[in-house]
Order: sequence, then structure tokens, then C-alpha cells
Amino acid sequence: MSGGEPESSPGLAAENFGDRLAARVAMRESQLVLGLDPDPAGLWPQALYFADGTVDPSAPSGERAARAVLEHCRLALAAVGDECVAVKLQVACFERLGPPGWAALALAAATAREQGLLVIADAKRGDIDVTAAAYAQAFFGVTPTPYGPVDGIGADALTVNPLLGTDSLAPFLSAARDRSSALFVLVRTSNPGAGDVQEQRLADGRLVSERLAEMVAELGSGGVGRAGLSDVGAVVGATAPKRLEALRAAMPQTVFLLPGVGAQGGYVQDLAAAFAPGRAGGLVSASRGIVAAHERTGGDPADAARAEASRLRELAWSIAG
Amino acid sequence: MSGGEPESSPGLAAENFGDRLAARVAMRESQLVLGLDPDPAGLWPQALYFADGTVDPSAPSGERAARAVLEHCRLALAAVGDECVAVKLQVACFERLGPPGWAALALAAATAREQGLLVIADAKRGDIDVTAAAYAQAFFGVTPTPYGPVDGIGADALTVNPLLGTDSLAPFLSAARDRSSALFVLVRTSNPGAGDVQEQRLADGRLVSERLAEMVAELGSGGVGRAGLSDVGAVVGATAPKRLEALRAAMPQTVFLLPGVGAQGGYVQDLAAAFAPGRAGGLVSASRGIVAAHERTGGDPADAARAEASRLRELAWSIAG
Repeated sequence: MSGGEPESSPGLAAENFGDRLAARVAMRESQLVLGLDPDPAGLWPQALYFADGTVDPSAPSGERAARAVLEHCRLALAAVGDECVAVKLQVACFERLGPPGWAALALAAATAREQGLLVIADAKRGDIDVTAAAYAQAFFGVTPTPYGPVDGIGADALTVNPLLGTDSLAPFLSAARDRSSALFVLVRTSNPGAGDVQEQRLADGRLVSERLAEMVAELGSGGVGRAGLSDVGAVVGATAPKRLEALRAAMPQTVFLLPGVGAQGGYVQDLAAAFAPGRAGGLVSASRGIVAAHERTGGDPADAARAEASRLRELAWSIAG
Repeated sequence: MSGGEPESSPGLAAENFGDRLAARVAMRESQLVLGLDPDPAGLWPQALYFADGTVDPSAPSGERAARAVLEHCRLALAAVGDECVAVKLQVACFERLGPPGWAALALAAATAREQGLLVIADAKRGDIDVTAAAYAQAFFGVTPTPYGPVDGIGADALTVNPLLGTDSLAPFLSAARDRSSALFVLVRTSNPGAGDVQEQRLADGRLVSERLAEMVAELGSGGVGRAGLSDVGAVVGATAPKRLEALRAAMPQTVFLLPGVGAQGGYVQDLAAAFAPGRAGGLVSASRGIVAAHERTGGDPADAARAEASRLRELAWSIAG
């Protein structure tokens, strides 16, 4: 890590992700992450209207759907971006639309960046050495080719799966650190079946998720910035608040990405332990809870989303204060 | 499962993956899987030559590189496809080239299918409910959109990561079964760090990998065909032969996908236990060991690859016999 002043930082690479995040959280007064997982069958009506105006009606269905998905993301970002510190793009929802879907992913990321948001690619990748490095090129880096370099998505953070062990995470972390970015390692997910593996009891008395937490803390110990936060974060579901204190104790300098608020049944009120290292220690992620708020409240989708995002932002800010 | 005769099967969906695989293995006398993980900086020279002849030199670098990657895959398939029963496409290596890379992935899959090979998408995906279903659409299915359906890759099998639990695998399995396809669930990977999580000892005396094996056996029990093989397979690294017997005992009807032969240090000779349920019970996967054989032996890349594939095919066939 550079010892220079933050304002004289020579470039992105000299800055630590935790410091970048902490500054962004303080400036925007938000720990809220807008999750975008667009379903082409459930887009905001205005997105279809805009897409119809820009894509040739004879274009392949994938191209038209990807355009509508992108417009949906842009509308959602325009409506609630100001309430958020980051966007979490669910890669599966773009990937299923093929090449135009992958193009829409890059454009959605660019739109979020232009709004001053950090971009979290929720891809849950995990693989061995050479392959992990290839995924890291896709999300953080650049792929050298005989025809010149090919840019990746340029994410500020990527969710990764640690089942393959620490050596499988190392190429991801190396690529992330090169550009002051971060990993969020799955530790305790938000789904009902999370216990099938993550909550199995080990012979040493710990749960598997606590072993994963240990790996995260070790891996992240070399990437802690002035704000006391590491560039190796953890995904900890907001649906398991009882596990939060033990996991915070095992990972004192780790940023928690907390999905599962809203549609999945988690409550911001239960997440106080996540914010122990400071406000930027916990990022509250909500997807359908924000974007589909109008299905519960009625009214304009953008207005409903903005009201719900504002409510969640204020709630998290007050609990973390 | 349908009780009809195999020859009167009304469509793909009526047939079991294990039966499809067993028939294919018997017909082609091969349990060999060609792994394709193309690095744009290490393609066969002829691939660059072919690509240069078909892509506008002013096209973006990603488009040109993806074309060269596709030509490389086509050349490798032409050289060794006859020795193999399946191809394993390493999705990361296409994904890093952006939209044209994703297009090349679909075209490489189509080329392999035309050669009578099964297509294994090595993507190691894993996510919760709705997202798992989205990934399943990308690899197995079709995504409904207001503009008509968007086709996925059409894979015959997909590698998946079970860390999120059985409920996270269910949408993948449902989509796979709908088209007589399969999952290969990570159980014991081939990398040195596999032990960090997978070989942790549980309180009940088993290893985590044995718990994963139990999940695989349970999940697959509803998809066993006449050949006695299930449509839920397991990834078991050829680099850990000592673990093979215990894992085979825990998963008696599971097809093992065995990566790690060659470049990673695994030996076909050590894999006999994998073939206990029959020849189709073990699929020997080699990537750089085949495609980069000329780097060790010299000579033409295609000739060297064919010789190595032939050697591996015969070796596996004799050991499984």
C-alpha cells in the first residue's frame, strides 16, 4: 500500500478498496447497494417503450431483450442511484441473453460508474489457477491477445465462491488489488439451503462458514487500508442475523455485503453487528425489494423504487450510526 | 423416466442422460473428454491464419481474438474429436473476450455437437433460486422475453458449485432434466488448495467432500437410467486418486468427471475405481495435455494432439475394461 496522501494518490492502484469505499460511503451518506437482476418478462414498462424506439424491430430477440434490460437498468439507476453507494449487477440475468446480454452488462456497469456508484459484479465465480485468472481478466482486467488487449467489465468488486480453497482465490485477489478493487467471498449465503454445507459442524467445533471466515480474514490481512477495512469482503446473508456476531468477530476488518433484505425476508434492523468497524463495514443490498416496490405499493415504478431506497438508506444509516 | 423403448423415444426429454452417455461411450469406444480452455496468446498458428482470412482487420480486438479462439477450437475438434466422447468448454476463456467471446462459445458448442460429441460447459456456476434458474436458462434452456425466446448454449452438461446447498442446485437440475442433460457437481477438485474446504473434517467424522458426495447421491437418485447411471455427476480430480474409492462408495451411480490428467499431474492408471459402475462411470478430461502436446513432442499441433488423445483414450479404455 502506498504511504502517500490520499489526495496525492498517483492512480487507482495506489489506493486501497476499503478506503475508497469508506470515502464513498461518507460522501454519499449511504451503505445501500442497488441489486439489479432484470427479468426480461418483468421490466418496467418504460424500458420496453425506450427499447422499442432504439432497436430495429427485425433484430434478433436477444438483441431487443438485452436493449430493454439495459434501459430498465438505466431507469432504475436514474431513479435510485442517488440513494446508493454501489450497484450489484446479477451477471446471470445478462448472461442468459447471450452476446447482447454481455454487452448490456458492460453498458450497465458504465452507466453506474458515471453516476459515481461502485460496481459489484455478482457472478459468484470460482475456479482453479489459470481459469480463475481468466475470470479475473473478464471482470477486473484486460486480456492480452495477438490483436491487442480486450477490456473486461471493469468491476470494482466481484463475488467469488471459496469452495476450491485459498489458492483458487489468489488470482482473483491479485487482479482486484492491481486496480484497487475487491472480492466479496461467499461465507454465509441468504438462501434456506445455506446450511447444507456452510453450517455443517467441523471436528474442531466450528461451522464451515467460520472456516470460510478464517480464510477471508487471512486473505484480506494484507489489504487493509487506513480506514481499517480490507479489500477481501464477505457475503453474509441478511436472512441469518443470529450468525452475524460470530462472523463479525472472526472477520473484524472485513466489509460485509448483506443481501437478502426485503424479498428474501431479511431486516435492516437486525444488521447492527455488521457495522462494528464503521459505517462502510456493512453494505445493505436490496434488489426486488427496491425495483419491484411498485408491485406492493402501486404507483409509478421509479417513484416507488426511490421511496423504498430512501427508506432503506435512512434506516441503515441510523442503525450504523 | 419413460418406460418406452429407446428407439421409440418421442424426444430428448424422455431419455436419461446416463443412458445417452453410456450409449455414446460404447459407440465411440471412448471415455475421453477434450478440454478446451483457449488462451488467445497461445493458439495454434493455423487458427490465427484462418481468423485473419475471415475477420476484417479493422474489427475490434475482441472480435478478432474471439474468431481466432473459435478457429482454434474447430481445429482441435477436427484433430481429436474422433477420439473423444465429449468436449469440455472452459467458459472463463470465452467470457473474458466479451460479447464476441460468448458468441464463439455457442459456435464452438455447435461445432462439437455436429461431430457427435456431448458438450460439457465448465462454468462452475452456483447461486440461489431465481438466479440459479437464470444460469440454467443460459446453459440449458431458453429465456422467455417480450420479443420471443432467447436460446441458451444448449449444453449437455454443466459443472456447478454446491456450496450454497441442495436448494441452489435444484433449478439447475430441473432445467437439465427437461432436456436429458446433466450436472457435474464439484465434490473434490484437482487443485492443490482443494483441501482448504473440501477436506476439512466434519464433526461426524466425514470430510466435507463426503458430505458433498452425499448431496450428489441424494439429488441424483431420481435420475438413474437403465444403464445405472444418474444425471447428477460429480467432478473428482484425477490428482487425488487416494480419495477416489471412498467417493465412489458414497456415489455408486454417479458419473465422475475426472479433470487433472496430464498438465496437472494426474494419471489415468490411478483412476480404475471411477469405472466401477461401467465404462461410462468415469470421464477422463484432459485440456493442455492434449492441445499443447506439441510443446513437449514438437511437430504439428494437430498431429501431436491426436497422438496424445489416442494414447489417453486407449489407456482409459483398457483400465476401465
